[in-house]
Amino acid sequence: MPHKVRIALDAMGGDVGASVVVPGAEISLRRHPDTEFLLFGNRAAIEPLLEARPGLRSAARIIHTDVAVKMDDKPSQALRYGRWKSSMWLALDAVKKHEADVTVSAGNTGALMAMAKFNLKTMQGIDRPAIAALWPTLKGESIVLDLGASIGGDAQHLVDLAVMGSAMARVVFGLDRPSVGLLNIGVEEVKGLEQVREAGRLLREANLQNLEYIGFIEGTDIADGTADVVVTEGFAGNIALKTAEGTARQFVQYLRSAMSRTWRTRLGYLLARQAFRTLNEKMDPRKVNGGVFLGLNGIVIKSHGGTDAEGFASAVDLGYDMARYDLLAKIEQTLGRSGAGDSAIRIGEVAS
Amino acid sequence: MPHKVRIALDAMGGDVGASVVVPGAEISLRRHPDTEFLLFGNRAAIEPLLEARPGLRSAARIIHTDVAVKMDDKPSQALRYGRWKSSMWLALDAVKKHEADVTVSAGNTGALMAMAKFNLKTMQGIDRPAIAALWPTLKGESIVLDLGASIGGDAQHLVDLAVMGSAMARVVFGLDRPSVGLLNIGVEEVKGLEQVREAGRLLREANLQNLEYIGFIEGTDIADGTADVVVTEGFAGNIALKTAEGTARQFVQYLRSAMSRTWRTRLGYLLARQAFRTLNEKMDPRKVNGGVFLGLNGIVIKSHGGTDAEGFASAVDLGYDMARYDLLAKIEQTLGRSGAGDSAIRIGEVAS
Repeated sequence: MPHKVRIALDAMGGDVGASVVVPGAEISLRRHPDTEFLLFGNRAAIEPLLEARPGLRSAARIIHTDVAVKMDDKPSQALRYGRWKSSMWLALDAVKKHEADVTVSAGNTGALMAMAKFNLKTMQGIDRPAIAALWPTLKGESIVLDLGASIGGDAQHLVDLAVMGSAMARVVFGLDRPSVGLLNIGVEEVKGLEQVREAGRLLREANLQNLEYIGFIEGTDIADGTADVVVTEGFAGNIALKTAEGTARQFVQYLRSAMSRTWRTRLGYLLARQAFRTLNEKMDPRKVNGGVFLGLNGIVIKSHGGTDAEGFASAVDLGYDMARYDLLAKIEQTLGRSGAGDSAIRIGEVAS
Repeated sequence: MPHKVRIALDAMGGDVGASVVVPGAEISLRRHPDTEFLLFGNRAAIEPLLEARPGLRSAARIIHTDVAVKMDDKPSQALRYGRWKSSMWLALDAVKKHEADVTVSAGNTGALMAMAKFNLKTMQGIDRPAIAALWPTLKGESIVLDLGASIGGDAQHLVDLAVMGSAMARVVFGLDRPSVGLLNIGVEEVKGLEQVREAGRLLREANLQNLEYIGFIEGTDIADGTADVVVTEGFAGNIALKTAEGTARQFVQYLRSAMSRTWRTRLGYLLARQAFRTLNEKMDPRKVNGGVFLGLNGIVIKSHGGTDAEGFASAVDLGYDMARYDLLAKIEQTLGRSGAGDSAIRIGEVAS
């Protein structure tokens, strides 16, 4: 990619819209000066924020639209009134038209996925898109997918998730051959779903050059960082993600109430403040903000709707990396269509 | 129940066996003096432990067997050599023969479930048993099931889980009408599994007297304690449980390493020691040790294999409560077969 990384921003997305998106873009631009922004949304809301930021001003262009997708609309509603003209749609369309390399939106997840599917379509050979996210672990970070873009799925879908997740791991972690585990349950007498077993067999047999399949893993292995990429279908993935979020919040709550109980614990808290700051940073969802939509003909990053400028900047950073290190080409490569290494992994071809 | 609560213990179960089981029984006996124990296992291992505990000695009887199920055996192996004669089998058989009111084992989960199904059989109207556990939440505790006894399942299975879980909540929490939530995912465009939606419709329409159905809940709601009973099929349930375990461990690890970094944080730790003790207690898995097998013609408690005497005592306490407050009758009642309140909730009858 010789040119700058061109990032299309849905400036109206998220709980507050432009007042988070524009400052977030500015933070990310400082980290990646070779970025250009297309800002889609209401010019009257965006312009003053941009005028106050000369550095960003000269790297950004506003494309005005009056229409914004609301956070609580159903995907079908959003499509009905927002297609062709909402800031979300236009930001996606910029990627479709090759005017941008990646779209970042903090808008309504369902609407964003519906519009992305409708406009960008899934990659050849991929039936259903997925949402992947970075997950903080004891070893660093892992990629976990699918977090709820679709429910269920056969062995081929799980293999596709492994291929896409490992391509993302190559981009984000800079690994040649990321390790991939299939999430399963360890209770002896049930031995896991048939499609999970079949996917494991396929991945083992394919022995891909860009992906090291390490077998089944359990829920505890996510936090342990046992695999670089954790693969599961979207129902269990979404439940794992939200259960972990809830548990982390619960822990913070317990800790806070325990620390404020007596003068000794309060004094201890003051002395150990730095430790709690470190802990908060480790568990800070803003630092790993950004789900990646995988499997579409274009890169789309979903930032958390309730994030702040720092969090939105993390999502923009992630989009930058995906574009700069060419996520889509790496997926194609693992799918075996680049001629540059791996053999194809399609059930019809592998399972002979 | 006029007589004492009679508890059958698999004295050979768990990573260490009798040296945890016998002291655990002693601790629980102190809390519930109206308990009698049947100890199944190797007399030579149990007898000396019992002799040292005169209180327990007079409330316990040893039934000798040489055969013990190993922790890493497959259920089929365990059934082959352990049926009719292992300590695990005999402890279950005591319940089958009405010589005991409940079985507690820290042995191999898969083997215990296989033997329990084989010997006790599922209750009339229940197709598949489930494993339920107490889950610490911000509000106290909730019951979560199924944690992996079976995978998948239709709407009727989820309704059965709701019925059994709410009966357990009535016993453990002393509630008249526990709230029940169906675990689902919140991503708009997918809207959850068909069987989850159908189960929700059935539960809403049935409007049971002993169970308040509150709708779909998400992973974060488990830690928040939104529902007294959280219902999901075993694959997602097992993954939720183990993901939460992993996350809690991760948090403790982060905290420990952050607190030991400088002299200030170490001093802070010393001053706030009591707070960390409180925190550990809150997150201590021993305090909520014990999965309950639901849906069988008999009550079976599975204690964690690696637990200590205090943890095993918690499992015995749980078994005591289940027997004393008659879990099985409460399930029957909610199933509508007691004539004492609720109408039957079977798909053929409700969905007209």
